[in-house]
Amino acid sequence: MVKVGLLGLGTVGTGTAQILLDPDGRHPLLQDLELHRVGVRSLEKTRTVPLPSGCLTTDLKSIVTDPAVDIVVELLGGLEPARSLLLEAIAHGKHIVTANKAVIARYGDQLFTAANQQGVYVMLEAAVGGGIPVIQPLKQSLGANRIHTVIGIVNGTTNYILTRMQQEGGDFQDILVDAQRLGYAEADPTADVDGLDAADKIAILASLAFGRRIKLDQVHCEGIRQVGAADITYAQKLGFVIKLLAIARKPEYASSKIANLEVPELEVRVHPTLVPHSHPLASISGVHNAILVEGEPLGQVMFFGPGAGAGPTASAVVSDMINVASLLKLGVTGPDIANTGLHPLMACSHQHYAAVAPVEELITRFYARFLTQDQPGVIGKLGTCFGDHHVSLESIVQTGTQKNLAEIVVVTHHVREGNFHQALEQIRTLAAIDSIPTLLRVL
Amino acid sequence: MVKVGLLGLGTVGTGTAQILLDPDGRHPLLQDLELHRVGVRSLEKTRTVPLPSGCLTTDLKSIVTDPAVDIVVELLGGLEPARSLLLEAIAHGKHIVTANKAVIARYGDQLFTAANQQGVYVMLEAAVGGGIPVIQPLKQSLGANRIHTVIGIVNGTTNYILTRMQQEGGDFQDILVDAQRLGYAEADPTADVDGLDAADKIAILASLAFGRRIKLDQVHCEGIRQVGAADITYAQKLGFVIKLLAIARKPEYASSKIANLEVPELEVRVHPTLVPHSHPLASISGVHNAILVEGEPLGQVMFFGPGAGAGPTASAVVSDMINVASLLKLGVTGPDIANTGLHPLMACSHQHYAAVAPVEELITRFYARFLTQDQPGVIGKLGTCFGDHHVSLESIVQTGTQKNLAEIVVVTHHVREGNFHQALEQIRTLAAIDSIPTLLRVL
Repeated sequence: MVKVGLLGLGTVGTGTAQILLDPDGRHPLLQDLELHRVGVRSLEKTRTVPLPSGCLTTDLKSIVTDPAVDIVVELLGGLEPARSLLLEAIAHGKHIVTANKAVIARYGDQLFTAANQQGVYVMLEAAVGGGIPVIQPLKQSLGANRIHTVIGIVNGTTNYILTRMQQEGGDFQDILVDAQRLGYAEADPTADVDGLDAADKIAILASLAFGRRIKLDQVHCEGIRQVGAADITYAQKLGFVIKLLAIARKPEYASSKIANLEVPELEVRVHPTLVPHSHPLASISGVHNAILVEGEPLGQVMFFGPGAGAGPTASAVVSDMINVASLLKLGVTGPDIANTGLHPLMACSHQHYAAVAPVEELITRFYARFLTQDQPGVIGKLGTCFGDHHVSLESIVQTGTQKNLAEIVVVTHHVREGNFHQALEQIRTLAAIDSIPTLLRVL
Repeated sequence: MVKVGLLGLGTVGTGTAQILLDPDGRHPLLQDLELHRVGVRSLEKTRTVPLPSGCLTTDLKSIVTDPAVDIVVELLGGLEPARSLLLEAIAHGKHIVTANKAVIARYGDQLFTAANQQGVYVMLEAAVGGGIPVIQPLKQSLGANRIHTVIGIVNGTTNYILTRMQQEGGDFQDILVDAQRLGYAEADPTADVDGLDAADKIAILASLAFGRRIKLDQVHCEGIRQVGAADITYAQKLGFVIKLLAIARKPEYASSKIANLEVPELEVRVHPTLVPHSHPLASISGVHNAILVEGEPLGQVMFFGPGAGAGPTASAVVSDMINVASLLKLGVTGPDIANTGLHPLMACSHQHYAAVAPVEELITRFYARFLTQDQPGVIGKLGTCFGDHHVSLESIVQTGTQKNLAEIVVVTHHVREGNFHQALEQIRTLAAIDSIPTLLRVL
């Protein structure tokens, strides 16, 4: 039997225990997995799952050091004590299954280096996209390709809010409050609505897709607080929906453009984005997630499904356990067996950091909404400022008025982000400009 | 080096060779794969890919028996000589990578039994869904679940034709001819438009999802020739699009219903189907494929992408080679190494055949279009016949007239298929009935 030590018995932990305790009709390898110990914060709490007697403990450290445990499943969330427990588990030769995107995105280098030294696996299918198989396909099914783009809707809370804004025409703040009431958003919504959760996830996806480690502070990150009901409406009229996209891309243009700088290999960024209606990601609504991968010669594939929830996340957690168990069964890992090296498609094989391009170097299209004095000549002045900084415009339209101010929406052709911001700097100095409430990128 | 013997150098074979000969920027394991021999029909043909000199041969048998070859990649298509060559390759201890859905769906039992005896793998990611990773996820990422439904749009030709019928309002025959002219349909379109290709693929998906072998002649199969422009229009008005779906399902209702018969475990079927606009498969258009998998506790995931083409299919073929190469590198397979058993998530582990339910036992909704004499009382007679056979109707509408005949469209609630057909038998005897041009199921 493969003995599992489970850290955390919240919703995902409970879902995971339920699968392990009820293996009938699932993969036969589940019969080889035994829920040996479960670490919780309190022994007093009523549990909805019938655990084997005596397996509960509040001493989490005793689980990660238990010689009988083969796989440590970390479902605590948060940085500590999760990180320290994972490192200690690895040091004791345990394989790791985790759903903790925050720890992996920040301390993946430590964890994978330690795991490679110990000859154990760190599995993280549940860290991105909930129940959607995307980590394993990136590791095992897409390797023939030169992957150049990964784009994900990887945060269900923001996609739920944006979908409702789209459907109801409501404002961000009202719908956020309602989403909190309904349990679709946390009491402290920062990690979701400011894009931090999506940033963790795209850092992980980028490292797998491009075989490089990613420094999280190099991931450019903007949330959805700035998106107004007016923007949703204008986007709709222009043929777009607004989605919070997490994007990792190998820019073909990068190599020749930046003198005296390390050549950037990658763009990695999270921001609200205008997505054309015809794009596969445009129809992903509500709490669903989807991850689109583009490569040569594959073209475009998309993985779609439930991005969170006890059942889907537990499905991913247990699939990782089955994968580790399959190698233990093959006899190619484990303390009692001569180690033949780690499976090259399951271990982390890259040690180098990616050179992530600063966002100023990004080549993209922009959407911007301006509030200006309602007087003649403003559109001309805006156009001139953009022209001065080589920002070519696709359209510039006065869309209405708000409280005696004219509302003007600009959509650019592809421009260098730095140039666009220089133009905005100059525009902000114009007397006729009241404010620039929204600034979005266009896919 | 892992030596590859490639059988067939058509479009997919050429795409595969191109990846192998240009590994830079792809998975590092590709460096370990060497294109050793390539079997073709003619040495005279001009090749667009710069093959190593001397590797071409017309003697395919010499490749599958070559002691130096580790992996035989079969891209010949068709039943023979593909099947015989595969069996001989397995007998000589070669691992197999194939895109041949026809051989796998018909002779999978022979091939997998032989492969398990020889300790080699038969890999078939490219056989279903072109470049979409779906075989590997079913084997490795979804094992925690009790899968109960797999629904695929797995034939690009029919999806292209139905999409154009939808967009242009055209008739099947005209668009088929145009699709043939444009290269989206074969000169002999039978395998595609009559659903046979989709039947092969759903038999393969069902066997993986449900861990049972499937007898191809038990897969109920209807093509799209009967779908008329009128049906597309009515479906649209009712809130549906018509798609050729390949469906495999574990029917919960099966066990108690069928006395004195082996209890059917599975439905496996291919037929044109009315799909609600809100369903994820409704928006899959053109030559794209998508496969939806539903299970407990996962819910619903969908895999979307290019279902055919040289590049996507080669991506799947090469990913299979990388998977085999990873195990060769781990040292857990291969003639020189003590065999530790096959990897339980990569080998075929099921020997039992599924009990597939006869289509009469199917519980489904129906859409039917009738042409009748344009006289009072016909709708009443239809309704009575259905009622006599316990077929409950959702709607019955006279939608128009055609050449002095009234056109009546019926949509049922869920009914037993056998009852529905008994009602139709009775209806056909009514003097007022001219014909029943279309009979479709509703998802």
